[in-house]
Amino acid sequence: MEKVAVLGAGSWGTALALVLADNGHEVHLWTHRENLAEEINRTHRNEKYLKDIDLPHSIKASHDLEAVVEGAKHVILVVPTKAMREVCGQMKQVLNEKVIITHASKGIEPGSYKRVSEVISEEIPEEKYEDIVVLSGPSHAEEVSLRQPTTVTVSSDELEVAEKVQDLFINRQFRVYTSPDLVGVELGGALKNIIALGAGISDGLGYGDNAKAALITRGLAEIARLGTSMGANPLTFSGLTGIGDLIVTCTSSHSRNWRAGNKLGQGYPLDDVLEQMGMVVEGVRTTKAAFQLAKEQGVEMPITSGIYRILFESADPRDVVDELMTRIRRHEMEDLTNILDEKMND
Amino acid sequence: MEKVAVLGAGSWGTALALVLADNGHEVHLWTHRENLAEEINRTHRNEKYLKDIDLPHSIKASHDLEAVVEGAKHVILVVPTKAMREVCGQMKQVLNEKVIITHASKGIEPGSYKRVSEVISEEIPEEKYEDIVVLSGPSHAEEVSLRQPTTVTVSSDELEVAEKVQDLFINRQFRVYTSPDLVGVELGGALKNIIALGAGISDGLGYGDNAKAALITRGLAEIARLGTSMGANPLTFSGLTGIGDLIVTCTSSHSRNWRAGNKLGQGYPLDDVLEQMGMVVEGVRTTKAAFQLAKEQGVEMPITSGIYRILFESADPRDVVDELMTRIRRHEMEDLTNILDEKMND
Repeated sequence: MEKVAVLGAGSWGTALALVLADNGHEVHLWTHRENLAEEINRTHRNEKYLKDIDLPHSIKASHDLEAVVEGAKHVILVVPTKAMREVCGQMKQVLNEKVIITHASKGIEPGSYKRVSEVISEEIPEEKYEDIVVLSGPSHAEEVSLRQPTTVTVSSDELEVAEKVQDLFINRQFRVYTSPDLVGVELGGALKNIIALGAGISDGLGYGDNAKAALITRGLAEIARLGTSMGANPLTFSGLTGIGDLIVTCTSSHSRNWRAGNKLGQGYPLDDVLEQMGMVVEGVRTTKAAFQLAKEQGVEMPITSGIYRILFESADPRDVVDELMTRIRRHEMEDLTNILDEKMND
Repeated sequence: MEKVAVLGAGSWGTALALVLADNGHEVHLWTHRENLAEEINRTHRNEKYLKDIDLPHSIKASHDLEAVVEGAKHVILVVPTKAMREVCGQMKQVLNEKVIITHASKGIEPGSYKRVSEVISEEIPEEKYEDIVVLSGPSHAEEVSLRQPTTVTVSSDELEVAEKVQDLFINRQFRVYTSPDLVGVELGGALKNIIALGAGISDGLGYGDNAKAALITRGLAEIARLGTSMGANPLTFSGLTGIGDLIVTCTSSHSRNWRAGNKLGQGYPLDDVLEQMGMVVEGVRTTKAAFQLAKEQGVEMPITSGIYRILFESADPRDVVDELMTRIRRHEMEDLTNILDEKMND
């Protein structure tokens, strides 16, 4: 039994706190909202983010960051990507012991286009942590909180540290694999949200499963292409944190990225959609980041470019999807083969 | 405009006939059922297999094989895998001209464990055809018949022949890619039905999207492993005829393999399920074939083995899925990396 600090009490942070509590750990859940912390401690529920789920009493919520991280061996960061740097800045002030930092955020930092582990390592002095680990995979928080079978992957530069995090989280329903490809695991989780927006757009337009499957498949090829150009192992995109997460995000109405895309496909403008959602939609910012990164890296990403135009240039979703479907014909394997060639020439 | 013979008037055969008719071809649709041919010609519908869809009058149905294939440049075979040899045997008698044979059947022959193009080439003398082409991909017949956007892949040993088939079928909604990997395209379409059964079983047990995504992802890795050992390019399994078809089959209630699995997951025995379905469920026979092939090739296929035990050894679906989810933990990339290693050592 260990003291674990979970920072961020949204759906996923709360669900991960639940897994840790199930495993017998003493879980301290931080939120910057004092009233949310108070509500969780009083009702043992987090109704807004994890409806109808009773939380074990061993989860203590607090908005006092210092109290939460003090004495914890593990800090789990589950805050939106754009808040990551600020939370790390606060955490750095109060960290006394060397911790293992795990993050479960699926995004790319706006503006800098950095991966979350890069942001963390820039903000927190190296002597304050053992290593930075990412936890990612096909995992709706709602299902995890119902103890339905779920698989995730953890990865860090030092595999032994990832294995410690594996030990922390693993239980009968929550299965944890390790991967040596930190870059690929982080990018897969982030970039898949772009394709989830696209799948939502296709569904919102009234297109069927055939169109959506094509979009997911071609989308996977293009995020693998960008990921590989940024140092990821292309095979990671065929794993749980790539295609697995992509499937779960693209085919379920739980996903807020899919839901946002669905509204866009129905013709609502982006601002209205984001206002209606009232939650962070990481895919919107990630599309902007990937669009820029693809330009810089000279990587062809027709689906991402199309979604970028829908989001930020008021392009008509139907025109974009029709254009994607009727691109000049070519041999399917071209881009896949290119990825393998690149890999083999490494 | 060409005369095209489509053999098989099930859902998929009829939908493909519709695409060809939309493209202005003269389509002759063969069925061994005289009353079905008569119904199609009289009502211009095929209610049992493609409900509520009006068929163009340019589709002529017949149960006279000779009349159907006479003068056709293209023969499209869309009969169940187990009937393929018999239909080819009949066709051979009446073929006068050298045709291009395209098949769109997703199975492995029971007993011989041969791919469909191998079966065709054994039955029909080489001088009677230019080449054998496979057409496969994520394509529910129902959506194709509603002219919803759909992508498929065609492949043959001679790419130019595949390109002729591409020309024949391609239109604004029905997008056709080519691939040089005949073996991979055929095996992907067949083997994915095993995983579709598994996804149905998981859903039938009441498990959620997280579990299903894990099963699809790990399932893809294992069918790619078997396919690669049989000569396929592993990357084909990441394309439209691999993961694309797998997604569409595993996430839609249109799929009869998924539906059969769903019933199995709810506890119905195989015989009852097959009787209720009243249609061919290719995945059941394909599971048997893959189970044997995996043994012969020494390929590890835990998901396929589990489904085999549910189908043929009355194993309890819950025990099997729970066991798959809690297999000893390991690094996720192991088997994926093995595939790449094999490929690189080719």
